[in-house]
Amino acid sequence: MANSPIPEARSVPQNDVLFIFIPYDIPHKWVQDVQSHRPGLEVRWHNSMNADKSLIPVESIDPALWQGVTLLCTYVPPPADLIPLVRFVQLASAGSDLWYSHPSFRKQDVTFCTANGIHPPQIAEWVIGSWLSYQHHLAKYLRDMNYGRWENLYESPVEESRGKRMGILGYGAIGREVTRLATALGMQVVCYTRNQRTTLPSRRDSSFCVPGTGDPDGLLPVAWFSGTDKESVNYFLDQSLDILVIWLPLTHETRHIFAYKQSQILGKHKTFLCNVGRGGHVDHGALLDALQTGLIPGAAIDVTDPEPLPKDHSLWNAPRLLITPHVSWKSNAYWPRVLDLLAQNLRNLEEQKTPLNLVNRDIH
Amino acid sequence: MANSPIPEARSVPQNDVLFIFIPYDIPHKWVQDVQSHRPGLEVRWHNSMNADKSLIPVESIDPALWQGVTLLCTYVPPPADLIPLVRFVQLASAGSDLWYSHPSFRKQDVTFCTANGIHPPQIAEWVIGSWLSYQHHLAKYLRDMNYGRWENLYESPVEESRGKRMGILGYGAIGREVTRLATALGMQVVCYTRNQRTTLPSRRDSSFCVPGTGDPDGLLPVAWFSGTDKESVNYFLDQSLDILVIWLPLTHETRHIFAYKQSQILGKHKTFLCNVGRGGHVDHGALLDALQTGLIPGAAIDVTDPEPLPKDHSLWNAPRLLITPHVSWKSNAYWPRVLDLLAQNLRNLEEQKTPLNLVNRDIH
Repeated sequence: MANSPIPEARSVPQNDVLFIFIPYDIPHKWVQDVQSHRPGLEVRWHNSMNADKSLIPVESIDPALWQGVTLLCTYVPPPADLIPLVRFVQLASAGSDLWYSHPSFRKQDVTFCTANGIHPPQIAEWVIGSWLSYQHHLAKYLRDMNYGRWENLYESPVEESRGKRMGILGYGAIGREVTRLATALGMQVVCYTRNQRTTLPSRRDSSFCVPGTGDPDGLLPVAWFSGTDKESVNYFLDQSLDILVIWLPLTHETRHIFAYKQSQILGKHKTFLCNVGRGGHVDHGALLDALQTGLIPGAAIDVTDPEPLPKDHSLWNAPRLLITPHVSWKSNAYWPRVLDLLAQNLRNLEEQKTPLNLVNRDIH
Repeated sequence: MANSPIPEARSVPQNDVLFIFIPYDIPHKWVQDVQSHRPGLEVRWHNSMNADKSLIPVESIDPALWQGVTLLCTYVPPPADLIPLVRFVQLASAGSDLWYSHPSFRKQDVTFCTANGIHPPQIAEWVIGSWLSYQHHLAKYLRDMNYGRWENLYESPVEESRGKRMGILGYGAIGREVTRLATALGMQVVCYTRNQRTTLPSRRDSSFCVPGTGDPDGLLPVAWFSGTDKESVNYFLDQSLDILVIWLPLTHETRHIFAYKQSQILGKHKTFLCNVGRGGHVDHGALLDALQTGLIPGAAIDVTDPEPLPKDHSLWNAPRLLITPHVSWKSNAYWPRVLDLLAQNLRNLEEQKTPLNLVNRDIH
């Protein structure tokens, strides 16, 4: 069946062993629901975190848990010899890069799916929260509290979001949820994608999406831009943006997509910068200069290069900058959502539908 | 005509003199638009603010500006003898309390309208911004920046808004826009009003509303509560709220609507408190205790009692509290919006419709 468009790995889960190894106690009800009309399915799980919050090494749990596993949900890849029978792997991360050199990853009859779509609600909250904090001068007021200072300056006006223009570099699951919230705030959103998306079908995103969130059909942006060269990016940055949100994969094309030249362009309209992609997207020297000279009015970054940002790095003291230590992905709903996705993908296997977030290994 | 249901003061603006005295330069285009099909209407304006941001006293501007004024838009009440002919006053504030003892206010043939509905977009942004800042620990990360501290603790989880429950004390224009944004974030909103609102018409709000904002028809809350006594309020507070937003007029009924008893009730579900009403709504001693003991997990207040909050007040050092100096009303859109409202009310006068935000002086 290896050459069939729907490989065996995607067929009905029965006489299967599902093992879930994530840092979360799987609710009994979830297991019951998944097993209720699948009598042949055995479900096992082990919390992958110790009480002291350290991660449990894959090899140190009871080996019996790995025996006969055909369906796996995990964050960390186990050694290939522990999972010889595996045919479906639900990753608990948005990327599959931890698996690139893994023998199982090279077997075409093993289906891999990422956890893409798990992160948008919380990361979009982080983006909107840091933007509103900046616009409403909350950092200044928090500082003033240290001195018991009640200072309502006429000189610190508030620019409200309604009517403002947001640019999103990368229009994946995260950008779509940011766009939905920004639109609710009365903003106009323009987006930039690598490939041109002029037709409605090309604007759709079929990855996992929390119901009621995002923009799966790509209907919200008021304009779409695209390209693979710097000129196209620079043209997009020149669209009188009030805020630029970066959410892209980090590649040689996108490394330092914000550098000196781009700070000059954004400086024309005084664009606020928000980076929730990777630290490497932003040239930190250019960012520091742009903030110090007032070329850009402020920024919020959840990612730096390197991470952790060294204690003595000059970016810590940059004016009107918020740095958070790569936490925007955090949410109490993270693991419940992984289980929602896993349950949906078990249904898709059953119905011989393409599972959500299928990894296309041809591009690796 | 003084006894007619539509008094003369609301009739067609013609052979009228409109004078606008607010801290804003009225755009030429606005004046042109308003005058374009009203040949008899004279429009005058004077910026009520000096270059140094101090307010210009009403009496110190050229007296000729006051001559023959029949339609007035102002923040500060001028002496009654300056406006003997006035028949319509558009206030630039949400309340009319500055006018209670003013002779013109007692003349039934003078129509007064407030600027209710000018504030919701920016105050709702403030509420959502301070809530998301709190939920995503932005104050902690801003503090950590001072020490170059990159600390991503597993022990500081993030509770995302989706699925959370917001309670709103008072469901006026502000509460409705907060509700719209909270609903976009996936929250459920329950609201509390003084009078019972069980029918759809009773849930409507006919005051000025920025198009696309708020909840003018009152369709968004998942449940409505009401009452005038403490027991009813306490019952509402006991609805497992994740956040309570206070936006009420300050009366003897609502003074200290949050006090020790209420902090105990909110403590059961660890409710975050957000006060954008008046400082007197919250017993500051009870708030301080509740924060210090961890009874409530955090709070954000834009109003205090007294204002300014004295430099040595213990609330400045309360844990997990954000205090801002009564600034949540600020917006670059404030004065443009007053002009939008004024233009709409000129149309309403012309069409003999009841103007928006009509002040009902019977209750004073």
